[in-house]
Amino acid sequence: MTDQADKPTLTQNLVKARAPRGLADRGPAEIASANRMMQAIREIYELYGFEAVETPFIEYTEALGKFLPDLDRPNEGVFSFQDDDDQWLSLRYDLTAPLARYVAENFDKLPKPYRSYRSGFVFRNEKHGPGRFRQFMQFDADTVGAATVAADAEICMMAADALERLGVARGDYVIKVNNRKVLDGVLEAAGLDDQENTAQRLIVLRAIDKLDRLGSDGVMQLLGAGRKDESGDFTKGAGLSDIAITRIINFTGWHDEGSGAQGVGANNAVTLANFSAAVEGSTIGEKGVAELSQMAALFDAAGYNDGRVVIDPSVVRGLEYYTGPVYEAELTFQVKDEHGRPVRFGSVGGGGRYDGLVARFRGEPVPATGFSIGVSRLLAALQMIKSPIVSATAPQGPVVVLVMDREEIARYQGFVATLRKAGVAAELYLGSAGMNAQLKYADKRNSRCVVIQGSNERAKGEIIVKDLVAGAALGKAAKDMPREDYLALKERAQLAVGEAHLVTAVKDVLGR
Amino acid sequence: MTDQADKPTLTQNLVKARAPRGLADRGPAEIASANRMMQAIREIYELYGFEAVETPFIEYTEALGKFLPDLDRPNEGVFSFQDDDDQWLSLRYDLTAPLARYVAENFDKLPKPYRSYRSGFVFRNEKHGPGRFRQFMQFDADTVGAATVAADAEICMMAADALERLGVARGDYVIKVNNRKVLDGVLEAAGLDDQENTAQRLIVLRAIDKLDRLGSDGVMQLLGAGRKDESGDFTKGAGLSDIAITRIINFTGWHDEGSGAQGVGANNAVTLANFSAAVEGSTIGEKGVAELSQMAALFDAAGYNDGRVVIDPSVVRGLEYYTGPVYEAELTFQVKDEHGRPVRFGSVGGGGRYDGLVARFRGEPVPATGFSIGVSRLLAALQMIKSPIVSATAPQGPVVVLVMDREEIARYQGFVATLRKAGVAAELYLGSAGMNAQLKYADKRNSRCVVIQGSNERAKGEIIVKDLVAGAALGKAAKDMPREDYLALKERAQLAVGEAHLVTAVKDVLGR
Repeated sequence: MTDQADKPTLTQNLVKARAPRGLADRGPAEIASANRMMQAIREIYELYGFEAVETPFIEYTEALGKFLPDLDRPNEGVFSFQDDDDQWLSLRYDLTAPLARYVAENFDKLPKPYRSYRSGFVFRNEKHGPGRFRQFMQFDADTVGAATVAADAEICMMAADALERLGVARGDYVIKVNNRKVLDGVLEAAGLDDQENTAQRLIVLRAIDKLDRLGSDGVMQLLGAGRKDESGDFTKGAGLSDIAITRIINFTGWHDEGSGAQGVGANNAVTLANFSAAVEGSTIGEKGVAELSQMAALFDAAGYNDGRVVIDPSVVRGLEYYTGPVYEAELTFQVKDEHGRPVRFGSVGGGGRYDGLVARFRGEPVPATGFSIGVSRLLAALQMIKSPIVSATAPQGPVVVLVMDREEIARYQGFVATLRKAGVAAELYLGSAGMNAQLKYADKRNSRCVVIQGSNERAKGEIIVKDLVAGAALGKAAKDMPREDYLALKERAQLAVGEAHLVTAVKDVLGR
Repeated sequence: MTDQADKPTLTQNLVKARAPRGLADRGPAEIASANRMMQAIREIYELYGFEAVETPFIEYTEALGKFLPDLDRPNEGVFSFQDDDDQWLSLRYDLTAPLARYVAENFDKLPKPYRSYRSGFVFRNEKHGPGRFRQFMQFDADTVGAATVAADAEICMMAADALERLGVARGDYVIKVNNRKVLDGVLEAAGLDDQENTAQRLIVLRAIDKLDRLGSDGVMQLLGAGRKDESGDFTKGAGLSDIAITRIINFTGWHDEGSGAQGVGANNAVTLANFSAAVEGSTIGEKGVAELSQMAALFDAAGYNDGRVVIDPSVVRGLEYYTGPVYEAELTFQVKDEHGRPVRFGSVGGGGRYDGLVARFRGEPVPATGFSIGVSRLLAALQMIKSPIVSATAPQGPVVVLVMDREEIARYQGFVATLRKAGVAAELYLGSAGMNAQLKYADKRNSRCVVIQGSNERAKGEIIVKDLVAGAALGKAAKDMPREDYLALKERAQLAVGEAHLVTAVKDVLGR
């Protein structure tokens, strides 16, 4: 009775060990892979003259460009809290808004154009799902203060170089480029100007985004009166004229019998000719085509026009946010979707020109263009293609020196010190369990071998180096294995050597 | 009038570009130094068999072991905010409490003992001052599940190895070791047991901490009736008996005419003999001395008893928190304090055994010991001793290809691509300024050289590589410099070569 009465009390006092939803821990394999991946990206970015910068995780909410939080729900979307002086602070939700604050704060002392890169965790208080977290890592590069689209072109080529450095084969990725001004021009030429028609413009953007799923017939219906799908549901269309619809379809360069990828396969010159026709008569549209032509010339000159960087009208997402060129890094190799159907892996990063970024602080527009990589998504892709940069397996564990006799712990510690001095990761078993549990511990650590010295070996001045991989093979060896093979395997699994040969014997096993 | 009426409105709408107080940005030199430093620490920790782990920045407030926030001031000390389901979340204020949560959550699948390391930013909402920030980085290593003090000894030796790997010379640092149980024993033997006498115990701890400033006379007064300082102010003492006072002074091993460092200089054996005498009759105290003796034997066996790791009664800070051995990494080289007086640099990290850490989650004590490095303080120390691991100077900037003729930008871009392909960090000038401003830009980037091709050079198929360092020397050259030297310097400052020799010429200058 006493026990039963006491236990619930104890349990009530215990704190439940759990991380809040949408927040994850990372183990050694994932950390090592992500570090190697980011180091490789850094090397490419520095080759392009970009320099590192870091900003704090907490900024004034107003500096992040968000409206002040709703007092009843201050953490909607962005985590926010009040400082001692009642000013609102927020955890950064991307790396772009803090960069704008940094550039504005240090405007006079920074070199301009200012090329910088930074990686770090950002926080969004949104519903999470598979692969969606409330804390996740981005890797950004931005050029601030360069009005020329050569800055945008450079970032596109840098993104291509970074993907190849990471082990993505040429042909397995494409950097797609479009321009907000071109789309504005197409819409203007189709009679939908910027100020009014917001709803119609959105319908058009969404329709273009559906080309690869619906084909041109379906999209033309969505651009016109509307479309009835297989289930009989009707989606209201944008109500454009036939001429406007034809212009937009021509702009996309879409052919239903084509490669299936919108515009891709056609070369940049053909795409630009389509664009020119589609924006005819729109000043802004023509400006956009001129910008893309200038970028295409730079891709040509640098040899990136071989399918690495492609002008592509299908990039429409985010276009409402950016003010000039937009670009997206897409991995084109196939994976299976949740229904087992083959699909392209898809986007691992994107960006574009957004000239309004620093203006909020300085009152004058400052040209800026930047590119952001979703670190865990890219990591997942690299693991999928088995890039040597990343590794899904746990790193090899240290050599474990077993404790056979507690009185001799200083001696065992000496073996460990000798191994470490020789650059071999090694440790003394520090638990209180017996030999079998110690061997299991070494297995769990993914150690290749253990060092053993019982009283017999000590008397002879010897140690045993046990190869855990060969030992496991020995355990699984067929009963009818020829005796010679068995003995050879046994010898391999366990070496007895003099103490002086500890390092040599261990390195021998580690080198197998 | 219109202008004047408009401008204030514009200014009012502008957001001020500033980071909240106590939060700092980091530039490329500091980031590069910190990364190299942490990479070196990681290498040593992995050599010792510690594996990486990372936890999120946000945890349940209760999991961090804090009381729930005061609703009126939820951000006192720790930044806290409520989740959608009204549960309190906090930004982590150290890396230890999240580790305890992680270990408790993954207890069955982790190898035990579990050795891990992690580095990352932590957040404290405290008053900040010089060198004190609300976001700062820690680098921790912990062993969970090892009851033996061999685990504590290992971490002490690992800390010593890490400091040497970072360029701190042997003799310029000391890892000081003490034990909470010994101090408990001393206080118990002096008649101050744990339950009552909390105020007196604190007076004793504070008095011991003042030995190097007040000498033994002053401290004996503080342990007895009290002490009047030079200004005539009186500090009430602990009121201990003469026997108790003598015991405590003997425990500290302090000699006023000594090295000035408490107990340091005496060897571990002498210190342990002092400890034994001071705790005589106290069971807990004797247990503490036995633990320290065991650690000392391990330091002896591994050769760390040469002044690298020293048992030292002066380590009293934090003793109230820990439950067994405590250790502190102190840099002993001298720096000037704010009054220009020479002082030791002091502590860069510390830790100890705290067996209650995981118990809050599991209801049973889990032995744990760990060590935490203050990253920016250690970085400051390494910069002070000019360790090659860190560098206070900005990294060398990229080679800048100047834009002399906007029509030829694709050609310039080609030079840049050629340099990058050869592994040389290079960039195209992307601003809109003229040649002088472009040269100033390259200076600001800390570039060693620029590549120039005007129309004259283009006609000849040549480029000019301008060495900015030699160029600066040329600008400062004395007027009466011999003409030959001047010409040699001039030739060095500016090389004209065929386009095909671009990479060779640039590498030649970079290698100077």
